[in-house]
Amino acid sequence: MERAILEGVMKLLEDGVPLAELSIERVARTAGVGKATIYRRWSGKEELFVDVMRAAEPPDPVLPGTSMRDDLVALLESLRRRGLVSRSAILHNVYAQMKSSPRIWSAYHAAVVEPRRALGLDVLRRGQRDGELRADIDLELANDMFVGPMLVRAVLRPEGELPEGLAETIVDTVLEGLRPVSSTAS
Amino acid sequence: MERAILEGVMKLLEDGVPLAELSIERVARTAGVGKATIYRRWSGKEELFVDVMRAAEPPDPVLPGTSMRDDLVALLESLRRRGLVSRSAILHNVYAQMKSSPRIWSAYHAAVVEPRRALGLDVLRRGQRDGELRADIDLELANDMFVGPMLVRAVLRPEGELPEGLAETIVDTVLEGLRPVSSTAS
Repeated sequence: MERAILEGVMKLLEDGVPLAELSIERVARTAGVGKATIYRRWSGKEELFVDVMRAAEPPDPVLPGTSMRDDLVALLESLRRRGLVSRSAILHNVYAQMKSSPRIWSAYHAAVVEPRRALGLDVLRRGQRDGELRADIDLELANDMFVGPMLVRAVLRPEGELPEGLAETIVDTVLEGLRPVSSTAS
Repeated sequence: MERAILEGVMKLLEDGVPLAELSIERVARTAGVGKATIYRRWSGKEELFVDVMRAAEPPDPVLPGTSMRDDLVALLESLRRRGLVSRSAILHNVYAQMKSSPRIWSAYHAAVVEPRRALGLDVLRRGQRDGELRADIDLELANDMFVGPMLVRAVLRPEGELPEGLAETIVDTVLEGLRPVSSTAS
């Protein structure tokens, strides 16, 4: 039932129906259920659309827990996959519509983006405790250093390359640094 | 004259006039000039708005040329300042309007964003040649590693902190890497 409703909304969005015209009533009609059925599961349009996005995106990453490095690779790989998914013509349009609605965007942010960010900070905190991350580094800055290069390509640059293996490359290169080895030794 | 026209457009935008309603005719009327005067200087609305944005933003950075590190700090400091400027309520609104117009946004991109990116890649290319940057690193990746953490704060996160000194911190930390020194030696 829930699945049918979420797919119904996505179908309407794919057909180019503007978010603003997607009332709960119209969603109910499309999915062939009563409005009450929808309101039993979702408190309103914002919550419903957040779940539509979630269903369209790759699932949240499972952290291997073997090391900070491996957990960071899993997190960045998940961002890479989301980036690839969001480029499909249909989802791109849906994202653009979501962003143009401040209420829906902020619900998505609170439900998806913020928890993901908190997870990354936890991984870094454990890494710092276990000696995998420099002790003198601010965790927010470290987080932006790992996540920033991936987000720039996945979100800001529609034509940015997102090849397989990019997550590993970014994590290892940020850990290693960009200074030539010889000049570190000098 | 040019200044008066650019300021006239900014004034209209500040007053909340939607970009779509800002015809060359209306701009001419506001600035007290003829339409021909505007068309002598700009080929159309897109070009005019790119110059409006340019006039509102901090000037392009002057690269000191003393080292790759110093040039990168200047480039990132310029992004930080743009980020701060774009947060003013007025400009924020103007940026949002620009982004919702694909033609104007792509003109802005071609005139401002792309040259800035090319400049960064030049700096990195020289740095690699001069031994300031690891020889085995892909320049596009290196560019994203320096620029990404600043852009995440300046563009993606409206509440991201942009303190003084952030440009230096990012450049030096990306060069140095996030691995603890002891574990590098082991």
